[in-house]
Amino acid sequence: MQGKAKRVRIWVAYDGTNYHGWQIQNNGITIESELNRALSALLGEEISVIGASRTDSGVHALGNVAVFDTVSPIPAEKICYAVNARLPEDIRVLRSEEVASDWHPRKCESRKTYEYRIYRGEIWQPVRRLYTYHTYRNLDVEAMRRAAVFLEGEHDFKSFCQAGSQAETTVRTIYRLELEEQGPELVIRVTGGGFLYNMVRIIAGTLMEVGTGRIRPEKMEEILRALDRGAAGPTAPAHGLTLANYEFL
Amino acid sequence: MQGKAKRVRIWVAYDGTNYHGWQIQNNGITIESELNRALSALLGEEISVIGASRTDSGVHALGNVAVFDTVSPIPAEKICYAVNARLPEDIRVLRSEEVASDWHPRKCESRKTYEYRIYRGEIWQPVRRLYTYHTYRNLDVEAMRRAAVFLEGEHDFKSFCQAGSQAETTVRTIYRLELEEQGPELVIRVTGGGFLYNMVRIIAGTLMEVGTGRIRPEKMEEILRALDRGAAGPTAPAHGLTLANYEFL
Repeated sequence: MQGKAKRVRIWVAYDGTNYHGWQIQNNGITIESELNRALSALLGEEISVIGASRTDSGVHALGNVAVFDTVSPIPAEKICYAVNARLPEDIRVLRSEEVASDWHPRKCESRKTYEYRIYRGEIWQPVRRLYTYHTYRNLDVEAMRRAAVFLEGEHDFKSFCQAGSQAETTVRTIYRLELEEQGPELVIRVTGGGFLYNMVRIIAGTLMEVGTGRIRPEKMEEILRALDRGAAGPTAPAHGLTLANYEFL
Repeated sequence: MQGKAKRVRIWVAYDGTNYHGWQIQNNGITIESELNRALSALLGEEISVIGASRTDSGVHALGNVAVFDTVSPIPAEKICYAVNARLPEDIRVLRSEEVASDWHPRKCESRKTYEYRIYRGEIWQPVRRLYTYHTYRNLDVEAMRRAAVFLEGEHDFKSFCQAGSQAETTVRTIYRLELEEQGPELVIRVTGGGFLYNMVRIIAGTLMEVGTGRIRPEKMEEILRALDRGAAGPTAPAHGLTLANYEFL
């Protein structure tokens, strides 16, 4: 039975450990391929989701967003429960709702928040190994906070963009960049209107260089001005990164 | 090269997800078998650890304890670093230290703390699925707290012991049993001198029955008095349980 065509928005949480990232690949299962498979089986039609953030292999999400079109008579808000029964436990659709037929998650203003988690301590805690990056080095959190201030606001973040990215412009706005200590974990939390490829991981890698004293906090201004990926620190590993929140304005 | 014989105590953390529990089994790898393998390879002699708590399949630990004897010249406190290089990432030796040659982890007074974590909410968070038990039912935490009070102190916990246990006595002392809310997670934290087989999981399962209203808080007294496993609630699943702390008096 077919219903009226509708566009459905879903909020998706996942543990990225066992996936080759969001986007469909030839050589492994991805969040996108699992969602398409489960939704197509549930709705009895070929479904292709459009994702808001195409997260990398190993990156986690507490709430990524995607849309798809369907003619299924199942009410949009019921789809989340039904599709979870067809998804593996490490992917959950948290909410589903109808949106306007031309709503596109990458063509509207949004604020997203990423968290990069660093586990500090001589020895890594096994139950946190999949969700944190481990360092046994001492990090000067106050120096990292002073450095973070330079990155807030609108800047050309070319120095914090993976070379080879095809972004039209490398100007982005960071609304907030804060560091929070949660026991042995240090959380770098960044909220922005959009991020360049690997931008959050390069910010995390650079702030860690500040934390260990290899980069002075004030040097962040110079790194931004260089407009050169080589000026910033290394790209922090993917598994420490979580897409924590999405907000559409 | 052989050194003087010594007894070494290790503090071990692990993610129990991929193991058939602590104790050596014929049909799968265990924490004990991995420790014996790694320590034997490192020290060049056959090592058999004696564990303090032989946790079940799927149970995690932030700090279990074991001892072994060795004639290796490697200083006891260096062993933890060297052995971690030979262990999988989901098992870590946090500390190693020499103890008296007759010190035995199950033959001395200790206090151990277990945490049972419940994830409350309509949909389970994927990144917490390995470390929490999920319920979408509403739990009355205040009722659970009132019920918990009855279990503190010295009691015969026969009703909270898996049938078939060979414990000489079922009398145990709970020093503290508290419930802590951490956002969507409810932590049942219990500190005792020793626990019967599955005791913490049966306490958690019974407190959840109180939380959903199926058991009145005051009924805990009656359940204790029954001295019958059938009087208590179900055994909560293993993966929600973590051995959080060990203290030797």
